[in-house]
Amino acid sequence: MKKRKTRKTMTVVIVVLRLGHRIMRDKRITTHVALSARALGASGIIMSGEKDDEVLESVNDVAERWGGDFFCEHRRDWKKVIEEYREKGFVIAHLTFYGIPVQEKVGEIRGKNALVIVGGEKVPRDVYDLADHNISVTNQPHSEVSALAIFLHECFEGRELSNEFQNARLRIIPQERGKKVIGKEKG
Amino acid sequence: MKKRKTRKTMTVVIVVLRLGHRIMRDKRITTHVALSARALGASGIIMSGEKDDEVLESVNDVAERWGGDFFCEHRRDWKKVIEEYREKGFVIAHLTFYGIPVQEKVGEIRGKNALVIVGGEKVPRDVYDLADHNISVTNQPHSEVSALAIFLHECFEGRELSNEFQNARLRIIPQERGKKVIGKEKG
Repeated sequence: MKKRKTRKTMTVVIVVLRLGHRIMRDKRITTHVALSARALGASGIIMSGEKDDEVLESVNDVAERWGGDFFCEHRRDWKKVIEEYREKGFVIAHLTFYGIPVQEKVGEIRGKNALVIVGGEKVPRDVYDLADHNISVTNQPHSEVSALAIFLHECFEGRELSNEFQNARLRIIPQERGKKVIGKEKG
Repeated sequence: MKKRKTRKTMTVVIVVLRLGHRIMRDKRITTHVALSARALGASGIIMSGEKDDEVLESVNDVAERWGGDFFCEHRRDWKKVIEEYREKGFVIAHLTFYGIPVQEKVGEIRGKNALVIVGGEKVPRDVYDLADHNISVTNQPHSEVSALAIFLHECFEGRELSNEFQNARLRIIPQERGKKVIGKEKG
């Protein structure tokens, strides 16, 4: 697992599969999903649905400037992605507000490599059947962004908040008031 | 605190203040912020910036159908909102990726009533000074939606995931596969 090399606190690989992206409607939400995935310890995101070069570029650009080796790519055939990750021994977890509460399920996933499926507006019925676990973060309507955030936080038990991102060009020095960024935009 | 009556697991009131909403750009993100706030145990959200009736209606509509007594309102003068909540004894916490990591700060907030400020694209410098705490959820760029989610989850220590929403017209029965909703859309 190449993650182990650069992100020492993580020994588990979690990859996000974002389904059904629509260029016209989902640009910002998908970007938030991707950046949250990266910030909260996932190793990469695979986007399905419409191929959106703008989102891919902006996420890869953040990853390059802020360090780590998060990957972001588009794949047309999401079923094949699921198959491939299953073959690699990953648990397939689907986040849906119809599923079993994360607090009851996370124990079965924690410590294992996982592919986490995050749906868009309409999730094909197949996804529920292909997943090993259909998991809810509350059974209330809210956001795939916060559902993913809580899921990752539960999987990593909060350790993800202290991740170091290697080879960053930009870095924040936490402040009680105001802003402090070190580094430079262009290398 | 009227929350105590209807949402028994919560004894603490957290209200979200969303700054700088722009109708053209932020509709979906602000909606996700508001719904995440509700789902994860906040008592209400106050939106500042441009008044967006569509967002207000859609959030209030969810709250009505899915239960609980979450409030969602627009206020033009966000400084006055901060003053009012400070007078009521609320801690003022501002989520910003320049701030002190949540895992170091949450102990000072947990168990207290809090106004949580979630910025938009450009946060006025005043906010950093008016807040009692400037708090980061990782010092990486990601999403106000996931930052708020993790913050609430840390404040409520995961108990928010088991909240019951009273007087709901619609309710999910968690399923291993597929979807089960009970209740009816119109009362």
